[in-house]
Amino acid sequence: MSEDLFDAVRWGEDGLVPAIAQDAATGEVLMLAWMNRESLAETLARGQAVYWSRSRGRLWAKGETSGHVQKLVELRLDCDGDALLLRVEQKGGIACHTGRRSCFYRRWRDGGWEVVEAVVKDPKEIYS
Amino acid sequence: MSEDLFDAVRWGEDGLVPAIAQDAATGEVLMLAWMNRESLAETLARGQAVYWSRSRGRLWAKGETSGHVQKLVELRLDCDGDALLLRVEQKGGIACHTGRRSCFYRRWRDGGWEVVEAVVKDPKEIYS
Repeated sequence: MSEDLFDAVRWGEDGLVPAIAQDAATGEVLMLAWMNRESLAETLARGQAVYWSRSRGRLWAKGETSGHVQKLVELRLDCDGDALLLRVEQKGGIACHTGRRSCFYRRWRDGGWEVVEAVVKDPKEIYS
Repeated sequence: MSEDLFDAVRWGEDGLVPAIAQDAATGEVLMLAWMNRESLAETLARGQAVYWSRSRGRLWAKGETSGHVQKLVELRLDCDGDALLLRVEQKGGIACHTGRRSCFYRRWRDGGWEVVEAVVKDPKEIYS
């Protein structure tokens, strides 16, 4: 099983591929993170998104401190095998560390980036 | 304008960031590609997705041969500035070079990747 799983993926030179998390119910794109082989295996084993944190250089079980875990509904792979799509159930309805539903809350408009999504919960409450 | 645009983006060491294309009408995630500064500027100037092709090492105006251009509806940036989201109108309803709506047409199920999306148009017709 694992061989099939890993072999179809074209891992980057750093052993990573980008993984998109999409709300399975609303279709909203929540975030983009990275996965290595271990995080992909863990994601399937737990049924919850586990990424590789490039900044921390370690496995990152999404929601491990915030509780905002992403339950895996469906895992997809693209035509070239170099990108993953996770359709998820987002616990708490918040994917972003800023307390917003989605990390993609800035929109380019009239020569500037404007914030177009509200903070659902204060990060101080999330990470206290 | 361009300074604001570029400065908010955390370009990778290779000068690229991943860009997700999402169907603005259906919410479907169509593909993931890459952008450098020039492709981002071109995307905004033309109002159509222009990516950086890593395999060909050149700008890639999506749909330049297939006609399946992606009209830009909205450009979003994530919290960390290291991923872009393009909400697009997908001409022809086909984003993938295999003739499918979306590039994410393989689903992990029961220990294997299975194809779960039909070919809308034969690639031979698209690229003839």
